Amino acid sequence: MYVIMVYDVGQKRGAKVLKFLRQHLIWVQNSVFEGEVTNVQFEEIKHGIKERIKKEEDCIIYYKFDSMNYTDRGIIGKEKNEIDSFI
Amino acid sequence: MYVIMVYDVGQKRGAKVLKFLRQHLIWVQNSVFEGEVTNVQFEEIKHGIKERIKKEEDCIIYYKFDSMNYTDRGIIGKEKNEIDSFI
Repeated sequence: MYVIMVYDVGQKRGAKVLKFLRQHLIWVQNSVFEGEVTNVQFEEIKHGIKERIKKEEDCIIYYKFDSMNYTDRGIIGKEKNEIDSFI
Repeated sequence: MYVIMVYDVGQKRGAKVLKFLRQHLIWVQNSVFEGEVTNVQFEEIKHGIKERIKKEEDCIIYYKFDSMNYTDRGIIGKEKNEIDSFI
């Protein structure tokens, strides 16, 4: 499946979440990641995040897709990471 | 169509983009918006953003979907905005 993940996490924990997610997904921008993962990988990612955040304060939103076939992705302004070659 | 939009904009311009997008889409979290729009509305949103950002510095990424039928959306941690009733 394909996942888009956006996090809003306190600064100190944000660095940990950033580092963790960089190992599992493709960094897109700011606090946004995306990538192709299996169900097992996705469960591992969710578990890893839960270990790194304060669930009373932090928030991670994810969007899951069977595939990216029906979607379009665009950028306004400056591209901060050249991920197109990965998709 | 359904749109997810994430912005990474300098602080001063960020406030303008936030205010503008609140009038057109549903605020989800941090710098993330989503919502159902027509093609015309989407063009208006893109135009309005371009007027408010510095395109050499700022970056807005959008994902367009024909519908949200094949997607799942989840939250880890604290929900910051109750948008489920809008979807």
